[in-house]
Amino acid sequence: MSIKIGIYGYGNLGKGVESAIKQNPDMELAAVFSRRNPESVKIATEGVPVISADSVEEYKDKIDVMIICGGSATDLPKQTPKLAKLFNVIDSFDTHAKIPEHFANVDSAAKETNHVGVISVGWDPGMFSLNRLYANCILVDGADYTFWGKGVSQGHSDAIRRIEGVADARQYTVPVESALEAVRNGENPPLSTRQKHTRLCYVVAKDGADKAAIEEQIKNMPNYFADYDTTVNFITAEEMAKNHSGLPHGGLVLRSGKTGLNGEHKHIIEYSLKLDSNPEFTACVLAAYARAAYRFAQNKCFGCKTVFDIPPAYLSAMSHEDIISHLL
Amino acid sequence: MSIKIGIYGYGNLGKGVESAIKQNPDMELAAVFSRRNPESVKIATEGVPVISADSVEEYKDKIDVMIICGGSATDLPKQTPKLAKLFNVIDSFDTHAKIPEHFANVDSAAKETNHVGVISVGWDPGMFSLNRLYANCILVDGADYTFWGKGVSQGHSDAIRRIEGVADARQYTVPVESALEAVRNGENPPLSTRQKHTRLCYVVAKDGADKAAIEEQIKNMPNYFADYDTTVNFITAEEMAKNHSGLPHGGLVLRSGKTGLNGEHKHIIEYSLKLDSNPEFTACVLAAYARAAYRFAQNKCFGCKTVFDIPPAYLSAMSHEDIISHLL
Repeated sequence: MSIKIGIYGYGNLGKGVESAIKQNPDMELAAVFSRRNPESVKIATEGVPVISADSVEEYKDKIDVMIICGGSATDLPKQTPKLAKLFNVIDSFDTHAKIPEHFANVDSAAKETNHVGVISVGWDPGMFSLNRLYANCILVDGADYTFWGKGVSQGHSDAIRRIEGVADARQYTVPVESALEAVRNGENPPLSTRQKHTRLCYVVAKDGADKAAIEEQIKNMPNYFADYDTTVNFITAEEMAKNHSGLPHGGLVLRSGKTGLNGEHKHIIEYSLKLDSNPEFTACVLAAYARAAYRFAQNKCFGCKTVFDIPPAYLSAMSHEDIISHLL
Repeated sequence: MSIKIGIYGYGNLGKGVESAIKQNPDMELAAVFSRRNPESVKIATEGVPVISADSVEEYKDKIDVMIICGGSATDLPKQTPKLAKLFNVIDSFDTHAKIPEHFANVDSAAKETNHVGVISVGWDPGMFSLNRLYANCILVDGADYTFWGKGVSQGHSDAIRRIEGVADARQYTVPVESALEAVRNGENPPLSTRQKHTRLCYVVAKDGADKAAIEEQIKNMPNYFADYDTTVNFITAEEMAKNHSGLPHGGLVLRSGKTGLNGEHKHIIEYSLKLDSNPEFTACVLAAYARAAYRFAQNKCFGCKTVFDIPPAYLSAMSHEDIISHLL
């Protein structure tokens, strides 16, 4: 019997979840929920209904786990606690500072109705968090480093698009190679924001726009660019479509630590991701943790969980015997 | 109240556990158990007794978790099930093919007497296993690669030392850089044993020994060297002591996979370790998992566990609130 998955929200992430489900033989897509007119939403899986988000309650007993694919800024803080009263749910909430509040909200909603809610699943938060935790527990005396990229930051791209005279923009976050090398060499360097990442922007200007003014505005934008070394390249719409249509991303988590009675031995733990598609990879992590949510629910272990609370074996479709024989 | 740890076996690994305990403020070393005459064993922690292994039963109620630091070939298959009848235990059993049998033996011994036994903890098996599992669950359609080194293989060094005319030897396992690059590029290359690693040997010959014969014997030794490109360097005892006295090791686990409706996007997950001291790093992993064993015992969740069965949060000395706020 396969795990019946619902997808709530059908943007890039929802589409990624749909293709992830196809790779997991123990899962099936039961329905896609959308706030748009369901008739306007075409999905890639035949025979699966698209349902108006307003009618989600009717699916209360037809979905084992609902994968919520909304945005962290305004969608998930409301959607996840609300849907946790009806379903076992999982989301990719990624506003780090607000995770404790979100955890508490989802925990009480889920416990009230005997459901499981898994939050903040993806790669950061998610796999990067796990690697920070494991590495901190092993190398107690050490320092953490996280680098992002090379990859597209959608928030930064959007910020550029809001500047007058900009027709389109893509922003890549790029780790500074020399900083990364210093960390890998065990030098434990203190690194400022500027020393860790550079920002590389590709901009299509509208006809007659003042390019120098656009470049100036980008480079001085507080929070987004002012603290970084930023490069701005103006390109044509054709070049944008040809060379910058993907959503690649990735990054690295490192911990550099010392052991021995006198701290005489150095160690480096490094975890890195190189992703052609940020949303599809995040979706694959969500699918694996949806399996874990299902198992927690079967064990009547209700409430909110994070990647920290979940035994790794719960993610696997393989039997316990098989993972011990083949992966340990 | 701190977790009272016992160390059973005081070789390189036991010494590493001793220094790891000093880095973890919630742990204290209660006793060291040795098969040698206890009076001949000097340990680095003041005020802690060294006890004959024969008297271990007297410590039945004085140890929260016993970290067993014996060898996998002959010690652990006997020691871990036997000690699991008296204590919560943890070991670094690393004979991959025999893990299912060891699991069953420890599980029944531990359940019989309401104890917890955590087996096969370290970096491989251990952290590498975890990364194989997580990566397999995320990238369902993909291929796994494990590389070891650059590092000292004690088994291979010992094999060289058994050759006539050899006074001392050190063998380094070295990953083949071009193979690693092909994997990182997402080429999913099929790799033979010879294509993945080379073996680099430093040998001190006895006076008058036939060096050509030694080199020949090393290069043709079945299982250990015959399937590899092996380099043999003869050095002096002084060079050996100066340049090859450490036990560095490390390695990489990679998974290369595809996502998307038509497998159109590639992804690489890479985990790597660079370790100045193999036994001290393994000891740090054991210490963190000893904390998990203690928590399982407190929750009366008895029997055998592996790294796959343990929620990551159990490894941390921090509160659940703190790990969510600071590491997620």
